[in-house]
Amino acid sequence: MEDHRTPAQTETIFTQVVQPNDTNPLGNLHGGRLLYWMDECSAIAATKLSRAVVVTVSVDGVSFKNSIDVGDIVVIKAKVTRTFRTSMEVFIEVWSENIPNNEKVKCNEAYYTFVALDDARRPKPVPELVPETDEEKRLYDGAIRRRQVRLILGGKMKVEDANELRALFMKE
Amino acid sequence: MEDHRTPAQTETIFTQVVQPNDTNPLGNLHGGRLLYWMDECSAIAATKLSRAVVVTVSVDGVSFKNSIDVGDIVVIKAKVTRTFRTSMEVFIEVWSENIPNNEKVKCNEAYYTFVALDDARRPKPVPELVPETDEEKRLYDGAIRRRQVRLILGGKMKVEDANELRALFMKE
Amino acid sequence: MEDHRTPAQTETIFTQVVQPNDTNPLGNLHGGRLLYWMDECSAIAATKLSRAVVVTVSVDGVSFKNSIDVGDIVVIKAKVTRTFRTSMEVFIEVWSENIPNNEKVKCNEAYYTFVALDDARRPKPVPELVPETDEEKRLYDGAIRRRQVRLILGGKMKVEDANELRALFMKE
Amino acid sequence: MEDHRTPAQTETIFTQVVQPNDTNPLGNLHGGRLLYWMDECSAIAATKLSRAVVVTVSVDGVSFKNSIDVGDIVVIKAKVTRTFRTSMEVFIEVWSENIPNNEKVKCNEAYYTFVALDDARRPKPVPELVPETDEEKRLYDGAIRRRQVRLILGGKMKVEDANELRALFMKE
Amino acid sequence: MEDHRTPAQTETIFTQVVQPNDTNPLGNLHGGRLLYWMDECSAIAATKLSRAVVVTVSVDGVSFKNSIDVGDIVVIKAKVTRTFRTSMEVFIEVWSENIPNNEKVKCNEAYYTFVALDDARRPKPVPELVPETDEEKRLYDGAIRRRQVRLILGGKMKVEDANELRALFMKE
Amino acid sequence: MEDHRTPAQTETIFTQVVQPNDTNPLGNLHGGRLLYWMDECSAIAATKLSRAVVVTVSVDGVSFKNSIDVGDIVVIKAKVTRTFRTSMEVFIEVWSENIPNNEKVKCNEAYYTFVALDDARRPKPVPELVPETDEEKRLYDGAIRRRQVRLILGGKMKVEDANELRALFMKE
Repeated sequence: MEDHRTPAQTETIFTQVVQPNDTNPLGNLHGGRLLYWMDECSAIAATKLSRAVVVTVSVDGVSFKNSIDVGDIVVIKAKVTRTFRTSMEVFIEVWSENIPNNEKVKCNEAYYTFVALDDARRPKPVPELVPETDEEKRLYDGAIRRRQVRLILGGKMKVEDANELRALFMKE
Repeated sequence: MEDHRTPAQTETIFTQVVQPNDTNPLGNLHGGRLLYWMDECSAIAATKLSRAVVVTVSVDGVSFKNSIDVGDIVVIKAKVTRTFRTSMEVFIEVWSENIPNNEKVKCNEAYYTFVALDDARRPKPVPELVPETDEEKRLYDGAIRRRQVRLILGGKMKVEDANELRALFMKE
Repeated sequence: MEDHRTPAQTETIFTQVVQPNDTNPLGNLHGGRLLYWMDECSAIAATKLSRAVVVTVSVDGVSFKNSIDVGDIVVIKAKVTRTFRTSMEVFIEVWSENIPNNEKVKCNEAYYTFVALDDARRPKPVPELVPETDEEKRLYDGAIRRRQVRLILGGKMKVEDANELRALFMKE
Repeated sequence: MEDHRTPAQTETIFTQVVQPNDTNPLGNLHGGRLLYWMDECSAIAATKLSRAVVVTVSVDGVSFKNSIDVGDIVVIKAKVTRTFRTSMEVFIEVWSENIPNNEKVKCNEAYYTFVALDDARRPKPVPELVPETDEEKRLYDGAIRRRQVRLILGGKMKVEDANELRALFMKE
Repeated sequence: MEDHRTPAQTETIFTQVVQPNDTNPLGNLHGGRLLYWMDECSAIAATKLSRAVVVTVSVDGVSFKNSIDVGDIVVIKAKVTRTFRTSMEVFIEVWSENIPNNEKVKCNEAYYTFVALDDARRPKPVPELVPETDEEKRLYDGAIRRRQVRLILGGKMKVEDANELRALFMKE
Repeated sequence: MEDHRTPAQTETIFTQVVQPNDTNPLGNLHGGRLLYWMDECSAIAATKLSRAVVVTVSVDGVSFKNSIDVGDIVVIKAKVTRTFRTSMEVFIEVWSENIPNNEKVKCNEAYYTFVALDDARRPKPVPELVPETDEEKRLYDGAIRRRQVRLILGGKMKVEDANELRALFMKE
């Protein structure tokens, strides 16, 4: 296994202050703006893994838990969870911080998937990712199931071929 | 069933021209910008259903099929697929059009989920949605399974309680 | 009349939510932002007519009737009213909607004129427009008079050559 | 005539560099962006006249003569031409400059009309404008005719009441 | 001295209205936005001097004296103070105006330095600047000292070579 | 020394991808945009030190060494260097990375100074900063000299009172 990477090597951290410019009519961070920032941050993690130009191919499991106020600091952390032949899944976590009040709250999670492109803009193979910590291994194992969900719900895989996902439903 | 709505009553259409301002370094529409527009368009569909202020709670199944060029016209169509007690799932489809070349290509699909808020910004019940066409009924049936996927993968539901989803895996 | 279009074939609808980012210091939708959106929406209508790249050549008759609040939904509808040799006049109407309050108010009207360009960026002839409904015929007839006003006030036409406009003043 | 102003006292000059962010898909300054800048510049001229908060009520006679390239410097000059009871017409001229090439080209002209607001946001009377130069007097005289055109085309004035405009058509 | 310029020939004036879009979470003009505007305005002054493409090489002495409110008019004035072989120092002053209240306050000052580029994007010589008024002469004399401070603090000049700056410290 | 902080506790890292939206007419990152990002990043470092709302009071020593291309990743690192009674100096370094080419280049440095505000928006005392590493001590010592340069050049301090700065000039 000569050319591989660890999740830690792909970790990318974004910091942003929520300006009035970023808010929705309720005065909170606009959900669409956060999706934009998460896309940028996770694309960098995928670039670190693949050392190639990447494009977003899917977004899943985005859950908005808490709204984020104007003036809050948004911290976004992205790490590649698993690689497939030419694609990579990235796990993103988002916190909002109010430093004067010493508060830090988890606000959001998501999985973005990217494909690496060669110079002719066709998909190209990416190095393998080797998880190290327990959490990285858990995310690595889950990635195959999330991929099967995506393919089944997108009509590209039959239920009977989704072995890992079926195991989840059969296990009890 | 006195206060109900049909998907057609929630249909919302966005039209945008991709300006240089909206592009990524490859010169195509930035994926994050499209996620932002889809959020705005689907939020309006959810508002038409609930006649209330809404906030995004989850995003799933976003699949980017084709890149979109600068100068293309982006058409986004959003319709509510199903309501739960206080939440609504919205199905979004995206096409890019090059009118002089008479081309129109499907580029993207996604499911955004919203919660309706009352004046104190707490979740409030939403009217029931009654699907009419075959496609609306198919989306309505799928919504319960997509919801169970979200809850299971988010750790909020046990596999054995996801009846509709289990049926999908058990049926063969 | 082989290559002609109807106004309905050019109809274009824009939907936008007024975000804090779009407001003026009074907290309403910025007039300049609305002019920008109207330009984009009407350019698409002109593109549908001409199936060519178009550029704005004039703007007239923009009247701001009601201010639009943050959080309101802006609906912009554009339709070509009449074609001249290489130019097209587009009529634009703007409404603001507050869906929770079930209010919809007409806020703005305007006429934008575009020229179609060939590949060398020179004006090129456009297909003829044939109005169908009574309102479309009224807009079609008015277009010639609005054009004469533009040309006279811009110093490009003499009063005595503006037959349709003169008729308006002579008729009583 | 105690509280009056001259056009020179209202003159406002805007300077902008056209950034890639401001361009349309053809790589020129976006027409909508220029309309936005003209709105801001002319609103300041109207504020200088009225010393009050102002809102745009109409836009007319915008003519786009030449396209403006990225990197060009845009110079916008606005001056009040005439005041009515609570409204003011502002004349705007736009040039693009390419300083290294020593080129300066007139690109655009327009008339924006504003109303001054009191603290309760109702129209309030504005000071009278007294034109001084020949060009200012010409613009002052034309303002009444442009206003009659706006009112007639907007359906708020009958042709037979538009004396100054009728004179224009009757004079030969 | 055949090809020289005066500071007056480089004077550039920017006018902007502070929109909600430009504010920080305190509701005032965002400091970073003002730095952006000052960069644009001073780059034009440097272009007028050099009649060449210019790039920013340093920013110094920016002092924020008063915060600027939403709705205020920002007036930025830039003039070249001195030229070196391929670089130019520009002095920028910023005022905020509240026209209805007849208030005008000095808010900011700064020195931006630019280098002129030839077609191959290498530094190229610039015409000499000849100061005329007393204030222009004072700024011209100070420019050599500010340059020495920049070079010493940046580690590119030894203290003993900064003659003009040393004179300042030795004079008493 | 009960309430103090270390520079490491204030370290803040920004990551941005340069989008077409961020470029100047040369196609590089706009200098003003970088100044904006540096302002946001350093303001967070100052907030971490002071646990208070902060406003920018001065910017110095910004030196642009290399231009940054569209598609590059910009990494900005900010750390407080020294505190005065109510103000803090922050040192900022900027790198551009082209990950596919495995290039990372230092592009920019700057010093931003902030004041902490209490609830009435008046300056309030900040905790003391205690440098730890050699580089932190060097930046700490330089801060007093940079401050004296600012005060002298801004006319707020006499040369003979700038002891630390005078020592620099007297030492040979």
